Order: sequence, then C-alpha cells, then structure tokens
Amino acid sequence: VGQNSTGRFLALFDYKTEKYIIAKNKKVGILYRLIQLSVIGYIIGWVFITKKGYQETEEAIQSSVITKVKGVSVTNTTESGLLVWGPEDYAIPPQGDAVLFVVTSFLETPNQKLGYCAESPKVADGLCQGDEDCEEGRLVLAGNGMKSGRCLKKDGHSKGTCEIYEKNVGPLLTNAENFTIYIKNFIQFPKFSFSKSNVLETTDESYLKRCRYDEERHPYCPIFRLGDITRRAGHNFQDMATLGGSIGMSIQWDCNLDKGYSHCHPQYHFTRLDTSVSNKTVAAGFNFRHARYFKNGSGESYRSLFKVYGVRFNIMVHGKAGKFSIVPTAINVGSGLALLGAGAFFCDMILLYVMKKGNSYRERKFENTRYDKLNRSTDIDRSSCCLFKVKVEGG
Amino acid sequence: VGQNSTGRFLALFDYKTEKYIIAKNKKVGILYRLIQLSVIGYIIGWVFITKKGYQETEEAIQSSVITKVKGVSVTNTTESGLLVWGPEDYAIPPQGDAVLFVVTSFLETPNQKLGYCAESPKVADGLCQGDEDCEEGRLVLAGNGMKSGRCLKKDGHSKGTCEIYEKNVGPLLTNAENFTIYIKNFIQFPKFSFSKSNVLETTDESYLKRCRYDEERHPYCPIFRLGDITRRAGHNFQDMATLGGSIGMSIQWDCNLDKGYSHCHPQYHFTRLDTSVSNKTVAAGFNFRHARYFKNGSGESYRSLFKVYGVRFNIMVHGKAGKFSIVPTAINVGSGLALLGAGAFFCDMILLYVMKKGNSYRERKFENTRYDKLNRSTDIDRSSCCLFKVKVEGG
Amino acid sequence: VGQNSTGRFLALFDYKTEKYIIAKNKKVGILYRLIQLSVIGYIIGWVFITKKGYQETEEAIQSSVITKVKGVSVTNTTESGLLVWGPEDYAIPPQGDAVLFVVTSFLETPNQKLGYCAESPKVADGLCQGDEDCEEGRLVLAGNGMKSGRCLKKDGHSKGTCEIYEKNVGPLLTNAENFTIYIKNFIQFPKFSFSKSNVLETTDESYLKRCRYDEERHPYCPIFRLGDITRRAGHNFQDMATLGGSIGMSIQWDCNLDKGYSHCHPQYHFTRLDTSVSNKTVAAGFNFRHARYFKNGSGESYRSLFKVYGVRFNIMVHGKAGKFSIVPTAINVGSGLALLGAGAFFCDMILLYVMKKGNSYRERKFENTRYDKLNRSTDIDRSSCCLFKVKVEGG
Repeated sequence: VGQNSTGRFLALFDYKTEKYIIAKNKKVGILYRLIQLSVIGYIIGWVFITKKGYQETEEAIQSSVITKVKGVSVTNTTESGLLVWGPEDYAIPPQGDAVLFVVTSFLETPNQKLGYCAESPKVADGLCQGDEDCEEGRLVLAGNGMKSGRCLKKDGHSKGTCEIYEKNVGPLLTNAENFTIYIKNFIQFPKFSFSKSNVLETTDESYLKRCRYDEERHPYCPIFRLGDITRRAGHNFQDMATLGGSIGMSIQWDCNLDKGYSHCHPQYHFTRLDTSVSNKTVAAGFNFRHARYFKNGSGESYRSLFKVYGVRFNIMVHGKAGKFSIVPTAINVGSGLALLGAGAFFCDMILLYVMKKGNSYRERKFENTRYDKLNRSTDIDRSSCCLFKVKVEGG
Repeated sequence: VGQNSTGRFLALFDYKTEKYIIAKNKKVGILYRLIQLSVIGYIIGWVFITKKGYQETEEAIQSSVITKVKGVSVTNTTESGLLVWGPEDYAIPPQGDAVLFVVTSFLETPNQKLGYCAESPKVADGLCQGDEDCEEGRLVLAGNGMKSGRCLKKDGHSKGTCEIYEKNVGPLLTNAENFTIYIKNFIQFPKFSFSKSNVLETTDESYLKRCRYDEERHPYCPIFRLGDITRRAGHNFQDMATLGGSIGMSIQWDCNLDKGYSHCHPQYHFTRLDTSVSNKTVAAGFNFRHARYFKNGSGESYRSLFKVYGVRFNIMVHGKAGKFSIVPTAINVGSGLALLGAGAFFCDMILLYVMKKGNSYRERKFENTRYDKLNRSTDIDRSSCCLFKVKVEGG
Repeated sequence: VGQNSTGRFLALFDYKTEKYIIAKNKKVGILYRLIQLSVIGYIIGWVFITKKGYQETEEAIQSSVITKVKGVSVTNTTESGLLVWGPEDYAIPPQGDAVLFVVTSFLETPNQKLGYCAESPKVADGLCQGDEDCEEGRLVLAGNGMKSGRCLKKDGHSKGTCEIYEKNVGPLLTNAENFTIYIKNFIQFPKFSFSKSNVLETTDESYLKRCRYDEERHPYCPIFRLGDITRRAGHNFQDMATLGGSIGMSIQWDCNLDKGYSHCHPQYHFTRLDTSVSNKTVAAGFNFRHARYFKNGSGESYRSLFKVYGVRFNIMVHGKAGKFSIVPTAINVGSGLALLGAGAFFCDMILLYVMKKGNSYRERKFENTRYDKLNRSTDIDRSSCCLFKVKVEGG
C-alpha cells in the first residue's frame, strides 16, 4: 500500500499530452493558418485594442450639476412698463439646477382678478362648457382678442366664457443671446472611487469670470454664451427666442482610468430637443405660464399672468470609466481560444470529407486496432509543434 | 541549413489533428450525446434566443422630459374667496419639469404677520421651547386651533408660542381628475447614436390637442388624464386628492435596434410611491407649505401661507438598447464550446472508472512505452486520468 | 443500404476519446499542476467569490426621492425687520425635490424700482457698457457701495451704470444647524422587479417624527440633522453657513438578491461638492439671487431682491443588484476552462523545446508513418467523424 500511495503521488506529476497525427496537406494547412490569423487578429485588434476588452467598465456615473446664469436685459412695454431683467427674473427656477429655463420673450396680462373674462357672455362664440370649446389662439369673431384655451366658469355655473388675451409676439430680451451660463459639474465613478469636476482648479479668481469655453484653449472653463450654445446645436438663437425652444446639453465623460486622472476629460454636445428628427415643427417651441400674486390696499388679491417664451436647457451628464481588470481579460482570452478550436474542427471536416484522401486520414485519426512503429524528420516535427501550439491553444 | 529552413517553412502548412480512439460503448455514447444536445440547446435557446446573447446592450439611456398640465378648476372658501385655478396656480413648479406637483386641495392661512400666533402665551399648553413641544396636528386644550408643529419665538426669548391654524380638510379642486398632463420624452442611446421621442411626428396640430393616450390606438399620444393615471396605478383619484400622494410614472424603452427604428416603443407604467408595499399607511399622503408674500401700503410685509395637498408625479425614464455585436457573440459561442469539453471529460471519467472494461480503454487511451508490454499500477493511470481530466477540460 | 444506415445510426453512439501519451517528466508535471491550481484558484476565489461571477447584475436603478425639511429660525435686520423662517421660506424649492437648497444667510435689497442704480452716472468708475465693466464685489471709488456685477442700462442707451448693493455678510439663520431633513427614497430594479424604500415600515406614527438616522440603531429612519450631514461630509456647518456650500448625499443600494429582500440596505455617503479635491477654494460657496414682487397702491411694481447663501443638498441614488443567472456562470466557467488549455500548451512548449529529451517526446507525440491496411466499415468512420466533430467543438 505504501508503494502504491507513493506511486500514486509521483504519478501525479507525470505530464500527459495529446497524440497528434500529421496530415501532409498544404491546402488545409494554409486554410487553418488563415483561420488562426483572423481569430488572433480579431482578439488582439478588435476585442483588446478597439473595444478595450481587458477593461472592467462602469457606466453608472454619479453626477451633480450646478448652473448660474449671468446677464441683464431691459424691456419696455405698455402693460409692464420699463423692466430690468436680471437672472433672478429670467432664470426659472433661480436656484440653478440642471434643468433651467431662460426667458427670452414674454406676454404679461397684468392685474387679473376673477371676473376678468374679457369676453362678454353675450358673444355666443365666447361661451364654453370646457376647455375644448376654447381652442387656444383662435380669434373670437366679434370678440376682442384671442382665446387662451381656458374656460372660466363662475362656480356652480355649467357655462362660462373663454379667457381672452391679446396674443401678440411679446418683446424680446434683446441681448439674451449674450447671457452666459456657468455649468459646474462634479462626477463620481463609485466603483473606482474616482471623482472629477469640469471646472479648472485654479486660484486665479478672475479666470472663471472672464473665460469662455473653448474646446482647445479652455476645455476646463465651463462658461458658455447662450448664443454659442444654440449655434453649436445648429440653430439660430433669435429664431428660438421668439417661440422658445429646448436644448439638451450632454456632458460626456469617457474615462480610461488606466491612463490616469489627467486623461479623463468632459466633452460637451448640444442638441435641440423640441424639433423632431424630421423637423416637423408641430412640437417646436417652449413656453409656460406663471403668475405673480398681489393684494391691493383693501386686501383683495389679484395677479399678473406671465406667458413666458424661452430656451430650456437640460443638462444631461453621462459617461463611463474603464479600468484594467483580470476578469474580463480572462473571459475574452478564454473565449477567443475556444474559437480557435472551432476553426480546427472546421478544417478537420474539410480534411475528412472534402479531400480525396479523406478516408486514409480517417483511418489514421481514429485508431481502432493495433498500431505500428514510427520514423520521421525532426524538422517537420518542430514545425508540427508550432501547428500543435495553436492547436492546443485552440482547444 | 537552407534545406532545413525550407522544410521548416513548408512544414508550417502541414495540418495536424488529434488522434482519437473509438470506445464502442453505447451507454457512454448516448450519455455524451445527451450532454451535447443540452449544451447546444442551452446556447441556442437560452443564450441566443431568450437572452439575445449576440447583442451588445446599452443601459445608460439619455433622457429629457418636458411636461405640461392643462385644465381649470374653481374653488370658493372664506379665507381665499373665489379662486380660479389654472396650471400656473396648481402646477408646482410651473415650468414643466420631470417631477411636478398638482394641487388637489389646499389650506390657506392668509395675511400672516409676525406676532401672528393665534395662541396666547397664557395658555400653558401653547407654550413651547422647540418644535418638539408643538406636536403637529395636536389640538390645543382651551385653545383655538391645531398646532402647525412650529414654535414661534420672539427673537431673544427662549420661550415662544405654538403657531396655530385651523386644520380642516381644505376644499378640493373638484375636477382636478380631468386635468391632462402632456409628457414629452426625448431619449438617446449615445453608444448607438440612436434617438427617439414619444410624441407622434405629425403635422396635424389638432391631434396633439385632442388625443388621449391609448396603448393600442394612440401609443404615441403622450397626453394623460390625471384620473386615468391614478386608476392605472390602482388607486382612486378622489382618495388621493384629499391627503395627496405620490405617483411614479416610468417610461420604459426596450429597443432591439437590429429590428430598426420602428420597433422601439415607449411603455408606460404607473406606481403609487407613497404607500409601502405592505400598505402600511403611515407614510401615505403628500403635502407641503409654500407662501406668497405681500406688502401693505405702509410697506409692512405679510404673507399668505398655503398648505397644499396634491399628487406628485415623478417621471422616471429607463430602458436599454441591444444591437448585434461580434464581441458578445464570440464570448458566448466560445464559452459554450468550452462547456462541451467539460461534458467530454465527464464521460471519460465514467468510461474509465465506472465501466467494467475501463482498464482496456485506459490502456489504449494512454500510450506508455511499447504498447503491448505494460507494467504499471492502475494508480498511475488513475492519476493520469486526473491529469487528463484537466487537459480535456482545458480543451 | 438498410444495414449501412443501421450501422451508421448505431455508430452515432460510439464514444471517441483523445489519445494521450505519458511524459514521465516531474518538472513539467509539477509546473502544470501549479498552473492548474492558480487558474482554478482564480476562477473560484476571484471570479466567483469576490466578483460574484455567477450573478447577473442590474445597474440601471430606478429611484424616486422626496424630501421635507423641518425647523424654524428667526432673524432681525434693519432692511427686513423681524422675520420668522419656516421651511416654506428657507427651503427652495418648497415642494421637496431631490435637489433642495436651505437658506442659511441672506442679503435683502428691499423695494427696488427701476432707476434704482445707487451709482450716479457722473462717477466715471460707475459707468459701464457691459457686465464686464462691473466686476462683482469691486468697491466703487467715491461710490457708495459694491458692484453687483450687473450693468443697468436705460433701454436704447449703450451706456449704463453699475448696480450697487451694500455687500455685508448677512444675518445667519442661527439654528439652521438643527433643521432636520426627511429623505424618502423609493427604488426599483426593473430587471428583477424588485422594489424597496429607505423608510421603516411601521405603524408607529411617532417613530418617524422623533427618530434620527443612526447607522446601527436606526438604519431605516431617514431623518437627518443638517449639522450631522455636514459633519459626516467632514465640514463644519457654521463655516458653510456664511458663504454657503453644496453637499452631495449619495444613497447606495448594493443588493445581493440571492440573499433576499432583507439583505438589501441603503447606505448614505456625504461629500462636499463645491470644494475641489485639492481644496482650492475659488469655487467654494453657493448662493443665488431671487426676487419677490410687489405692487404699491398706485399699481407701480417694485421688488425685493434676496441674495441667499445656503447649503444645497443634492441627493443622488445609485446602486446595483445581483442575482444568480446561468449565463454569466457558464461564460465564466467556460472561459476559465479555456485558460487551462493555454496552460497545457505552455507546458508542451517547455517539454518539447526546453527539456533535453524533447525529441523523444516529439517522436511519440506526432505519429508520422505509413499506416497499414485497416478493415472496417467507413460507415462507422463517418459516424465517428460526427462524434469527432462535436468532440473537437467541445474542445
């Protein structure tokens, strides 16, 4: 038993290797070589170099965006009088979120009180039972304005009259084009505990006041002129200013963390979102109404209704980070090797079924009885080992 | 040498193939066939057909959401008098973000000034040092109202009195159920540079005013009645209207880009978020307070405090796109092939150890020196099989 | 033919296995064993135990966040007089979104009307043509205040004067540190149809009023003291209160769904976002301006401008869920096996080229001679090739 176990233990370290036969067939040999080369080329060239198959990637990016708009404009209208528009007025909401709206044009209906319904119930056309009856923007025959699409009813009454307002294209905030928007973006890749900001880390206060984004010269100056943004999105700011619009700014972080912190840069892309791909303009434009509420001396409340047109900026951050990891590398290498095996099988099929001498090969490949003595040249063998090399790799 | 190198070069194109022995054993053969079939079935049926293993998938969807609410309601209360509620009043915020709140009921505490503290300091129960002492909603004995959970202190003083308001269920915006919400969603899959919107691309203006979403007939009409949304979420709108609630609308884009643009459709799902799975109602309801600020003739500022109940809509967009890619295909095929190798190994073990004639197979499988005279302990063979095991596994 | 086809069918179930030769070489054997062990160790230890390679993971988490701030503070200033600050005043926006801002300090410029431009055009230094000329915060020589960075122009005029305001550090909301923020987070993993909330499911109303988050004792109490949040972020609240700041709260859900519902817990991390990694303080602080609008008896509108400093909380939810799936398991096992093949090839190369007795091994490994007449039916062979086919596929 002692001997046995010793033998068993020693035998553990006998190395076994597959037995091969040499098929002196150049056609198939060349074919197999080609398959090998293409598979290896695919693995190295495509999987590893192009697709970075050796990297573990993280697509769940964490992002925080802060925006700040700057610039002043002045408007003068009969309803509203002379107005100075600062960020606190034209930026909605003012607190600087990732989605913000900049007023470029507005219509004010001041001093609305209930009972304000410019349309008198006598005008049949102005009567309504629901909003459906007050098609927005439709001119009221014999009326004095356009319908706001709203049906105002005294409570209890089933009938009401359409709310009316003068629909004229409002005054433009002329130099809204020159407003600047400061976009501060802070990102994290939790998996790799990597974090970065799109703002230059400088102690020079003035830089972040004066600079404007430029892909080459100021990639880390996150200040954009509104006019430039729309231009990059392929649209003219003045065209958008009258009826408003919606612009998507996507900040893309494609980070190869193997190259380190300094090789992970933000890229800015701008798209107009309110016009469809086919530029059917039905959905184009962006506006909404908001109100300011007042009370007069006698405590009666009234309001000013603003219909504001403007550009809505939607800042979307996306990106992914890649870092070398042994797992995907092993998976890609392993499956690549297995593909070589498929190649070998393909060649065997040709050898055995397509080639004229297929049967002879078959007889040698599949040993079914005794076999005999061997003699051969080492050159061929050396080369055969090369072949064999890839063979075993393949499977 | 020249000859050698030539021979070596030619030999490169000799094809080598493994030598096999035939084990005429039907049992193992059948077993192996079964293993083959199951593995192949798994690869084709599950990996490729079910899981679309041939596709590269993108889960980082880019999305932009714009909402617009429509509808008018009228309320009449003693504090607030007659009020017309338009979107600019009941939609908070009014600018139409992906998270929006629709007021369905409200409590106004008008004309608050400091010193407003309905509770007189004499009422011991009304005294407080911190918010803890003013449990929200608790009725004040001998007091005249319910506590707002807020302790108002004159500055400097450590003691103050509890803010009081009449807590009654406010008036309902009766027809809030019929308000409609227009949800415009624009998505992008950057990896595949694919983008689409959930709005029908039509030139017929009226369609997007009249239509209502219907899964079959109007899948690209993004207009929903609030009542329908809550119904789809499995709740009654009126129930939610009084105490408010929170509804999650998820728009799901599962796109098989191999089938092309027209096969990528949005799907809408609605969930109520403020009631837990187990419907324990402690966290149910949704409300918040906001204020409107006024100044009287003498420049004194005062405010109206609104406690608004309503439905909060949280629009969440998710989805993924899949497109054929050679990399995942190769990985899945390769690893599948490798599994076949494991199957082969399993059968070998059975053949060599379970079958009665195992030794005879072993003698032929493992060529030791001269074939006929073999003197070795089966132990070594057993071990060689272990080696072999991994060998075959490896390929 | 009948016989043939029968034989062919039977032969289908002959089992074929590769022929091996035994190389009694301990060195290579040991080397191969080591390679085997390391590969197996890598597969089991790293891929499966550490990286959970047997799980299918979902990183696209669906999340809905609702926040509610509580607490009251009182300020007293000359411009604003005595003010009580409730959530509706200091929380911006008040509706409780995932991004919210809490005022900790403010500067009011009350009763602004147009024509308000404290700087008289005579003061050359106050003249401007654009915002560039009005560097924010710069003191005006012979002027009466600091520039707001805004150039006010009468419309039409190209020249204007700089808007001025007294820049002093505003009063602090002294006990803002003790405000509490209630964060309700509801998550979903659509792929696994798994959903959970970070709020304890209890019927005890008072618990969610009294409790404070504690990692050990109250992991499902989502109420945080502002002071605690900043402390966890490594900063002192009072330092941030004066100039404001931005804090990122990330709620992380790492769920191993194989362990079930109760093993999926939220984890809270706090980071300060407005100071860069290198703590260069140029970008530090957070503030913005907003206005309240009034009308006097004669209908003239004026406004109060608030410059508010405070802490901006940005709640970011991320996480991933893993669940056992056969696909990734098969991929990892398969590619691991393939790696063993690579190891075997490596050993072969050493055996054949490095070892002294390489040639003798080669002679036995590669069989090269004429082969003798074999008498067997090609049917069996054909079938054996079928077997062989799959065999090679398998490896």
